[in-house]
Amino acid sequence: MVCNELYQYSLALSLMDGVADKGLPITEYLKHGDHGIGTFRYVNGEMIVLDGKAYQMLADGSIVDCDPKGDAIHPFAQITQFKPEHTGKAVVPTKESLGDVVTGIVPGSKNFCVAIRADGLFKSVTVRSAGGQTYPGQGLLEIGQNQASFTFENVRGTLVGFRQPHYLQGIGIAADHLHFITDDRKQGGHVLMLESDGELEIQAAQMYTMKLELPKGDEEFNEAPLLGNHKDLESVEG
Amino acid sequence: MVCNELYQYSLALSLMDGVADKGLPITEYLKHGDHGIGTFRYVNGEMIVLDGKAYQMLADGSIVDCDPKGDAIHPFAQITQFKPEHTGKAVVPTKESLGDVVTGIVPGSKNFCVAIRADGLFKSVTVRSAGGQTYPGQGLLEIGQNQASFTFENVRGTLVGFRQPHYLQGIGIAADHLHFITDDRKQGGHVLMLESDGELEIQAAQMYTMKLELPKGDEEFNEAPLLGNHKDLESVEG
Repeated sequence: MVCNELYQYSLALSLMDGVADKGLPITEYLKHGDHGIGTFRYVNGEMIVLDGKAYQMLADGSIVDCDPKGDAIHPFAQITQFKPEHTGKAVVPTKESLGDVVTGIVPGSKNFCVAIRADGLFKSVTVRSAGGQTYPGQGLLEIGQNQASFTFENVRGTLVGFRQPHYLQGIGIAADHLHFITDDRKQGGHVLMLESDGELEIQAAQMYTMKLELPKGDEEFNEAPLLGNHKDLESVEG
Repeated sequence: MVCNELYQYSLALSLMDGVADKGLPITEYLKHGDHGIGTFRYVNGEMIVLDGKAYQMLADGSIVDCDPKGDAIHPFAQITQFKPEHTGKAVVPTKESLGDVVTGIVPGSKNFCVAIRADGLFKSVTVRSAGGQTYPGQGLLEIGQNQASFTFENVRGTLVGFRQPHYLQGIGIAADHLHFITDDRKQGGHVLMLESDGELEIQAAQMYTMKLELPKGDEEFNEAPLLGNHKDLESVEG
């Protein structure tokens, strides 16, 4: 398997349009790497893949171990075979300052994707997990308006995610898009805010190739307008 | 090699920004397929790859056979291992009507890429070939404003190209992007207009995967704004 190639299934735009009934089987998804994020059928929770193991983080804050041979499907997912090429240690007072640290340790990566991982003791991490569609075809913006958030304090855990450059907004998510899971694998979600007062161990890799796979035979995908407003996408995934 | 996967090197946006000094070597490019289009260093002409053989179509209307082991490089290029899955025959009074024929023979492909080939006797084909940058970093829009066009009449030849959906505008080119070469391989270019009064033989394949490779170590690419106006791109490549 090629290392540090970003594999992505479907589009952020189609998730915005509520295309979440079909998806890539987990058995196929995990063939593409060991470090990833995504969601589940009907946008039911957040996925994190850490060291090759997938977890489903639900809206009530609980976590389910995914069966790698199970029947979970992913209407949107990203993954890579992560081989860290840049490392650093830093106190990270905000999510934005983590971005600055990554920029610093991966120079010359403005127009490229970057795989990101950070491990350590967090003073606080605020996450949400999408609660799922309440009717078929419900779009991500509306789902996001009804989500609960949780703040975990003084927890050890890991951030997993990707940075995509601005020109991929809509295809993917132009920002540092991070999911979090605690060391005991009992809590986690999509990261909204974070703070550490000790040093986190940060690992990153610049990515030069991206493989985009689109939903074959998914009529709902093919009929979607895919015209999503980038500001809406930023508000729900940023 | 996977068939009907679109391999693309770099971005239409970076070509708009004039990033054309470095590129993918032809020796690497041709590993990804036998059916392709693209350009050359400094945007010096149009490339067409037909049945695995690459040609450089220059601004004076002449054509150079590319050495597959030569030193040509491509700042922007697309290619696939083409396996036609849909075929049709049609009189094609305009370039737009060719698009309608392709839509008809490849149903359910609105939000997907499509590889396109058409062979036959053309009543007329109007092409241009980019004349190259006149200074380093000159953008595609300005290059396009100084291009000559040629009309070939009653010629047998082949169209090679790709359709990309609207959401890929900027990454690639959202439209039917076609290059043409005559049967005698002596004339061709980027297609602006076409007309047949006899039937053309049309072949197409819907594409479900796209591999995007970005210019590793190209500082000019990494510094480019990549904010190109989609209307400008449409005007020069549409």
